[in-house]
Amino acid sequence: MRSFIIGRFQPFHKGHLQVVREILKKSESIIIGIGSAQYSHTLRDPFTAGERHLMISRSLEAEHITNFYLVPIEDVNSNPLWVAHVQALTPKFDAVYSNNPLVKRLFYEAGYSVFSVNLLNREKWSGTIIREKIIRGDRWQDDVPKQVAEIIEEIDGVSRMRDLTRTDAINGHTAP
Amino acid sequence: MRSFIIGRFQPFHKGHLQVVREILKKSESIIIGIGSAQYSHTLRDPFTAGERHLMISRSLEAEHITNFYLVPIEDVNSNPLWVAHVQALTPKFDAVYSNNPLVKRLFYEAGYSVFSVNLLNREKWSGTIIREKIIRGDRWQDDVPKQVAEIIEEIDGVSRMRDLTRTDAINGHTAP
Amino acid sequence: MRSFIIGRFQPFHKGHLQVVREILKKSESIIIGIGSAQYSHTLRDPFTAGERHLMISRSLEAEHITNFYLVPIEDVNSNPLWVAHVQALTPKFDAVYSNNPLVKRLFYEAGYSVFSVNLLNREKWSGTIIREKIIRGDRWQDDVPKQVAEIIEEIDGVSRMRDLTRTDAINGHTAP
Amino acid sequence: MRSFIIGRFQPFHKGHLQVVREILKKSESIIIGIGSAQYSHTLRDPFTAGERHLMISRSLEAEHITNFYLVPIEDVNSNPLWVAHVQALTPKFDAVYSNNPLVKRLFYEAGYSVFSVNLLNREKWSGTIIREKIIRGDRWQDDVPKQVAEIIEEIDGVSRMRDLTRTDAINGHTAP
Amino acid sequence: MRSFIIGRFQPFHKGHLQVVREILKKSESIIIGIGSAQYSHTLRDPFTAGERHLMISRSLEAEHITNFYLVPIEDVNSNPLWVAHVQALTPKFDAVYSNNPLVKRLFYEAGYSVFSVNLLNREKWSGTIIREKIIRGDRWQDDVPKQVAEIIEEIDGVSRMRDLTRTDAINGHTAP
Amino acid sequence: MRSFIIGRFQPFHKGHLQVVREILKKSESIIIGIGSAQYSHTLRDPFTAGERHLMISRSLEAEHITNFYLVPIEDVNSNPLWVAHVQALTPKFDAVYSNNPLVKRLFYEAGYSVFSVNLLNREKWSGTIIREKIIRGDRWQDDVPKQVAEIIEEIDGVSRMRDLTRTDAINGHTAP
Repeated sequence: MRSFIIGRFQPFHKGHLQVVREILKKSESIIIGIGSAQYSHTLRDPFTAGERHLMISRSLEAEHITNFYLVPIEDVNSNPLWVAHVQALTPKFDAVYSNNPLVKRLFYEAGYSVFSVNLLNREKWSGTIIREKIIRGDRWQDDVPKQVAEIIEEIDGVSRMRDLTRTDAINGHTAP
Repeated sequence: MRSFIIGRFQPFHKGHLQVVREILKKSESIIIGIGSAQYSHTLRDPFTAGERHLMISRSLEAEHITNFYLVPIEDVNSNPLWVAHVQALTPKFDAVYSNNPLVKRLFYEAGYSVFSVNLLNREKWSGTIIREKIIRGDRWQDDVPKQVAEIIEEIDGVSRMRDLTRTDAINGHTAP
Repeated sequence: MRSFIIGRFQPFHKGHLQVVREILKKSESIIIGIGSAQYSHTLRDPFTAGERHLMISRSLEAEHITNFYLVPIEDVNSNPLWVAHVQALTPKFDAVYSNNPLVKRLFYEAGYSVFSVNLLNREKWSGTIIREKIIRGDRWQDDVPKQVAEIIEEIDGVSRMRDLTRTDAINGHTAP
Repeated sequence: MRSFIIGRFQPFHKGHLQVVREILKKSESIIIGIGSAQYSHTLRDPFTAGERHLMISRSLEAEHITNFYLVPIEDVNSNPLWVAHVQALTPKFDAVYSNNPLVKRLFYEAGYSVFSVNLLNREKWSGTIIREKIIRGDRWQDDVPKQVAEIIEEIDGVSRMRDLTRTDAINGHTAP
Repeated sequence: MRSFIIGRFQPFHKGHLQVVREILKKSESIIIGIGSAQYSHTLRDPFTAGERHLMISRSLEAEHITNFYLVPIEDVNSNPLWVAHVQALTPKFDAVYSNNPLVKRLFYEAGYSVFSVNLLNREKWSGTIIREKIIRGDRWQDDVPKQVAEIIEEIDGVSRMRDLTRTDAINGHTAP
Repeated sequence: MRSFIIGRFQPFHKGHLQVVREILKKSESIIIGIGSAQYSHTLRDPFTAGERHLMISRSLEAEHITNFYLVPIEDVNSNPLWVAHVQALTPKFDAVYSNNPLVKRLFYEAGYSVFSVNLLNREKWSGTIIREKIIRGDRWQDDVPKQVAEIIEEIDGVSRMRDLTRTDAINGHTAP
């Protein structure tokens, strides 16, 4: 059985890693969709799809996990097209793991087996919380695989995120 | 005279039906634009354009209304192109009925006669209120034509909408 | 059973009308997709989706056919998304009629029953041939329903098409 | 040295004019990007790119400033593509002036010299404040170059903006 | 009277310059649309919109022509939206000059006065012919304003174009 | 050093495999871009990005190659944005391998080291030739890795391709 999971992975953290391990106990292989692939350089989506690709593959390799497929998936601005969009970009799969009600509903209406995900330590292992820690200067390095912390360092990610927090001091000189 | 009206019709309700009847007293035929056609499976826009097409045509047929044109219209992300987009997709029309100030302004600047719409029973016959009733489990079936209630039943629309209300329990597994 | 057929209908001709009649012998109702809806004002696609909507609905009404759904469908530039795009815009259907191998293959892979279409008089009843006649000034009015000929007249369609044939006399002043 | 600045210029006001003058003290010429070019007819973006083009060029001509390039720039919905998009549409430049942290970060990561902008009189010379004054009927004409006030008059801009403020009185008749 | 003309200007040549001069004899000012603005780096469209912007503005300044507006215009993939797209991006105009039948037809149907353009020396002053000369190594510099030749030199345009002519030697390693 | 190569891989064949091996002699790891990711179900692009993802990863795993990153890359319809688009989707790389002059030029203008690719056996190992063999019924299985032949079998790829060759027998029933 091949399973599918999708996330934004901003950044990839230990909770994600745990979920991947759990799914692989019941599946031959896992397809990991990197969602919202076209976004980066915002407070909610600071890292590019390429940076996230590297975070995930280095972390999984360090765990000697090799039976995974990584697929960046750009958003399509239309829910009824979304499942077909995922199907076109990924190898065929049988099961979908998600806790997102929309993702679950769309795959359910398309006839897939849909399962919930059992998350641990959600008060720490959460993209939102980790991004807030990075910005505030709190310690966040223990919440992500070591490889992820190294990549954020390499790409100067902390100062990128802090730059993005500074409020726009000039009206009328818009961001893109 | 051919008249144009546009709505999202999420869902088509008795207030909409009343408006169509009123316009047809003064027009030979009516073009009904199904707006935001590319959206579905959200709390604000639960039904696909195809489902809404069916709701409207079955309800009007039951009323023996036949002089209407139904046209799904996808949003274009640019107001200055919107009138041209509507014109390209619809048979020619002379009058526009709307209570939306932007719709009225855009057609007014394009040289159309623009009229307001006289709505009855707005505390009940309102898409927002009907969608809330569906989700809460209140009785909503009397606020829509019988055919619309049947279609929502057929497509399992109530449980679709309830699924969409459940808050996302996992951070980082994004919706499309 | 509800059936689906798609065409560009540039313009809607007697062959199309014949096909609609045949399908309705075996189906409760027919969904007619107006393909390539966003195009017009080219030699291959001279008429807007709205003009084609009018051609088809007036022709079918004259035949007292009322169990049809007309749906303009804009192209999506990706084959694997196309079936989902059609599904989102149309009422549900069970059977697909087409002679286009790609249309047939895509619906077949999506699990639909797919049937071929039996066309009569293809040396006359063909969009390409009728467009050529219009441009050359040959008699084309007998190949389309009377209502279609009237609409082309009303919208000044013949001189629109002839204008489009004149070769571009200036290099570097591009078309849109 | 050629410098680049981008704004939405809704509308172009005396603060913008002052910034252009300052930059031209240190640059041979200035490229002025008219951002969010595809938007108009909203409260935040009432004027079309063409109307803004006219506002800026007439104001600068009145000041005998001629060493400027005006370039409308549509948003691209992806930050990582934005700098390349600007580069493709504009003559080459060396320096970027902005107070927007995202604009600054994106150009900084792309290797440009990025400078802050020194704004005067921000409690008056601000697009947001001027748009509010126009809507409320307060005197705003002194906050923009005389040419801008004339253009807003010509295009009936004040009544356009007031039309846009009236709340939507009908549910289900959506805006585009 | 304000007039509008559109071209791809790949590159801007002496024929274009001549047309601009002619139109300005009958118009107060001219809006020059740089068409197909999003394309570059192909044999048909080698130069970016920004490079073409520079070619035109430098050439006109050298002629002491200042009453012009330069507006890059990206293609929209739908003829019926094209006039609205041009209108949104440009200051208002009264007359359109073109020899392109589609451009003329679209503006004519939208109610504009449309005029033909009188081109001189078309066997030499033609974008296609000049691009061929550049690639073959023939003398082309006399067919464009001196400023255009300088810009093509600055941006290394000749070797860019020659690179693009080399046939793709590997199957399956596609161009973007 | 990390290297980048892009292809459509319709299908992935022994020549591609050979190129990957050669590049890995000089690079730590390779990023393989699956180009034109949004296309499938045409004669030129029969396989989806997901099917090609599977072809490549299974073939490389069978060779015990693990230091590769697979990234589907949708076309963007604008050459000047293409390099930024690739950069956003992929881990950082230093060298680009290609024989496509446009790919080479675009990366060269963006400052990358660009190398040519040394292809063997091009009269057999070519996507075009292999697709022709599949359609004609000639033996093609020896020209691709065993895993690719298995996947094409699994997805019923041969009959998909043959279906696509049958000429459209009906005018006016358009392909999507």
